[in-house]
Amino acid sequence: MALVVIGGVAAGLSAAARARRIDPRLEIVVLEKGPVISYGACGLPYLVEGRVRAPEDLVVYTPEYFRRERKIDVRTGARAVAISHARREVALESGERVRYERLVIATGAGCDTSGIAGTAQPQVFTLHTLDDAERMRRFIAEKKPRRAVVVGAGYIGVEAADALRRHGMRVTVLERSAHALLRDDGALTAAVRKTLETHGVELRCGAHVAAVEADRVAGVPCDMVVLACGFRPNTAMAAETGIELGRSGAIRTDERMQTNLSGVYAAGDCAEVTHLVTGRLTYIPLGTTANKTGRVAGANAAGGRERFPGIVGTAIVGIFGVGFATTGFSATQAKAEGFSPVAARIEAKSRPGYFQGTKTTVELVADRGSGRLIGGTVIGEEGAAGRIDVIAAALQARMRVEEFEQLDLAYSPPFSPVWDPVLIAAQQLRKEM
Amino acid sequence: MALVVIGGVAAGLSAAARARRIDPRLEIVVLEKGPVISYGACGLPYLVEGRVRAPEDLVVYTPEYFRRERKIDVRTGARAVAISHARREVALESGERVRYERLVIATGAGCDTSGIAGTAQPQVFTLHTLDDAERMRRFIAEKKPRRAVVVGAGYIGVEAADALRRHGMRVTVLERSAHALLRDDGALTAAVRKTLETHGVELRCGAHVAAVEADRVAGVPCDMVVLACGFRPNTAMAAETGIELGRSGAIRTDERMQTNLSGVYAAGDCAEVTHLVTGRLTYIPLGTTANKTGRVAGANAAGGRERFPGIVGTAIVGIFGVGFATTGFSATQAKAEGFSPVAARIEAKSRPGYFQGTKTTVELVADRGSGRLIGGTVIGEEGAAGRIDVIAAALQARMRVEEFEQLDLAYSPPFSPVWDPVLIAAQQLRKEM
Repeated sequence: MALVVIGGVAAGLSAAARARRIDPRLEIVVLEKGPVISYGACGLPYLVEGRVRAPEDLVVYTPEYFRRERKIDVRTGARAVAISHARREVALESGERVRYERLVIATGAGCDTSGIAGTAQPQVFTLHTLDDAERMRRFIAEKKPRRAVVVGAGYIGVEAADALRRHGMRVTVLERSAHALLRDDGALTAAVRKTLETHGVELRCGAHVAAVEADRVAGVPCDMVVLACGFRPNTAMAAETGIELGRSGAIRTDERMQTNLSGVYAAGDCAEVTHLVTGRLTYIPLGTTANKTGRVAGANAAGGRERFPGIVGTAIVGIFGVGFATTGFSATQAKAEGFSPVAARIEAKSRPGYFQGTKTTVELVADRGSGRLIGGTVIGEEGAAGRIDVIAAALQARMRVEEFEQLDLAYSPPFSPVWDPVLIAAQQLRKEM
Repeated sequence: MALVVIGGVAAGLSAAARARRIDPRLEIVVLEKGPVISYGACGLPYLVEGRVRAPEDLVVYTPEYFRRERKIDVRTGARAVAISHARREVALESGERVRYERLVIATGAGCDTSGIAGTAQPQVFTLHTLDDAERMRRFIAEKKPRRAVVVGAGYIGVEAADALRRHGMRVTVLERSAHALLRDDGALTAAVRKTLETHGVELRCGAHVAAVEADRVAGVPCDMVVLACGFRPNTAMAAETGIELGRSGAIRTDERMQTNLSGVYAAGDCAEVTHLVTGRLTYIPLGTTANKTGRVAGANAAGGRERFPGIVGTAIVGIFGVGFATTGFSATQAKAEGFSPVAARIEAKSRPGYFQGTKTTVELVADRGSGRLIGGTVIGEEGAAGRIDVIAAALQARMRVEEFEQLDLAYSPPFSPVWDPVLIAAQQLRKEM
């Protein structure tokens, strides 16, 4: 019995490590196309910025570690190019074939920049791998670029903009859609824009980028370009094998992270998961979900029985020290999902006035019919992560606003005000319902 | 129709303000025994420390404000000494009588130090009122005490010890019970002791204090003493009126915060509330609960219909920059409550290793029979409040450990590790079950 895992970053290695725990004697092979495994991909913008000093700091485990300590055969530079499920074989670019009995597909996602001309120029970057980040660091050190354009205002885009700005560049972020952070939410986008502008970064929404010219992008002069757009799951190989994709283009999975092919699992940024607020499959690729779904896929592939119930879409990103945190749906998104949304937005202090609290914005969204909380946003320099997590827990528990309003949250002046901002928002929301 | 509220701090003023919102024309009288109302009592240790500069900073509203803006007749220096429910009258110390139709009792709590001799000396303090804190500040400035003893290792005790230490004093905390922070939890007490000792404060548990001598307490030399022990609800007047008290000595209430006497409500530090983990009445006096129960009591006293479902006992205290947060029950407490507890304790980083995370300790307690989470502790310099609040929300939602383990929490390197410490603790706990 051999388990083959395609992909050696978050989901793939979580799967392999968990499979080993379930079955100490299973043969496990991990195929990673790149030169390194197990790196903290979410740390890449901070490597570019310099807050993370060296690429090695982001590497958690080496292939040698996995071979020695976990008896897992991790192969780098091993790019899978085809899967033959009839023969239970993965074909590598090198021509080699690797037999499997169980397979975990953790091929991740990437930027599809095929619609943009001129991306092969040396001043154009993406930010997915350690190599990408190192190449960008070298370019900044050697060429000393003064103006940068970031294409895409998703998480990586705004983090890259923050990192480049801290290198002293003038930075413009060009976003095709009308909103930042992949969330149809005008107030959130306005808040992101305000924070960016306060720190000298311009955000242009509704900006179409057809080409990167030698010294400009969409009319904006620049000597460096970061493409953080067109994020797509890497699923071409899976689709060719007859693995079913969902509407998002990512791989459909059941709650055991199994695909439509028996014994073939998918996890991480290439897979769909259930959204617990709607009960429907969704595609929200994030590092937490990659680790969790990898764990469940690996456990089941090794003969365990675990389930991944789903996500509520919780995320946070830091922009110039301000946390922008979201969970569930914005009011606009909720409407599109068929809810009858009602929302309330408040500003409050993160601590009592006499204790130098900082501004915290909370928006809560509920469904008028059921009274359930279905979304939230928290923006602030302090406590945004903890506060969004409370809302996320409430979403997952299918809490109604009137239950949420009664939460017994911790209070002490150095930490929070006696009425936490999330409770003030809930009181306001109940008035609107 | 007149509503009389006895007590003008957190619960009393919340009740009065909420009653005004429910009924704009109701006659509302607030009787406060002290000279000021509406002060942030939880800020008193920080006033002693000096981080809060002036007593005025802690005063949120004045009686004039309430009279002018809310049409609420707030009387300071009005000490209620008896209630005659048959005549619907409150008697004041001055001899005056105030008629009521509805009554809210928000008499708070205080230190019962009657078992300790020598408390009337000038170097002996309690820390309940603005006057207490101001007197302590003056004493420190004028007498420059060098050694202090704090009696009691509850929240106020450890906060006072922290404040006095920052004035350069040698501080010893004497606690009668075997544990700090009012929680039968050996690991928590050990952690509190370690943090105190790191900062030069000694904690002695099992220390009986029978008397304050001129230059020492229980053999510990000192020139200043803070009594933060014997916390008792102020309920003698209520009991004399025939208002039923619970086993804790605090006033029994229903979920509308009504006492056994129709039209008489109780709220804040003098009242019992329901513990949502057990469903039984409990007495855990905290500022958040005071504000919430005051609101509900005031609403119902003014003809509204609101309920206070209860608490889960969430609290946090900062000791030399480390947050000690608890909710629900410790394993020992849970056993005493009739549960079959199983606990897991882990240490993890507050952020990824490459992002300078600091140590975070999480303990989770579950009931083996039902699989429900019933308690938690979080200790750390960062994020303790947010993390305990997630656990508190889970307790309130009656979440099982396996549900909690699947929470979709926010992740980004500046804020948290990809596996949040609370989720690592949940994984560990599930293994133990």
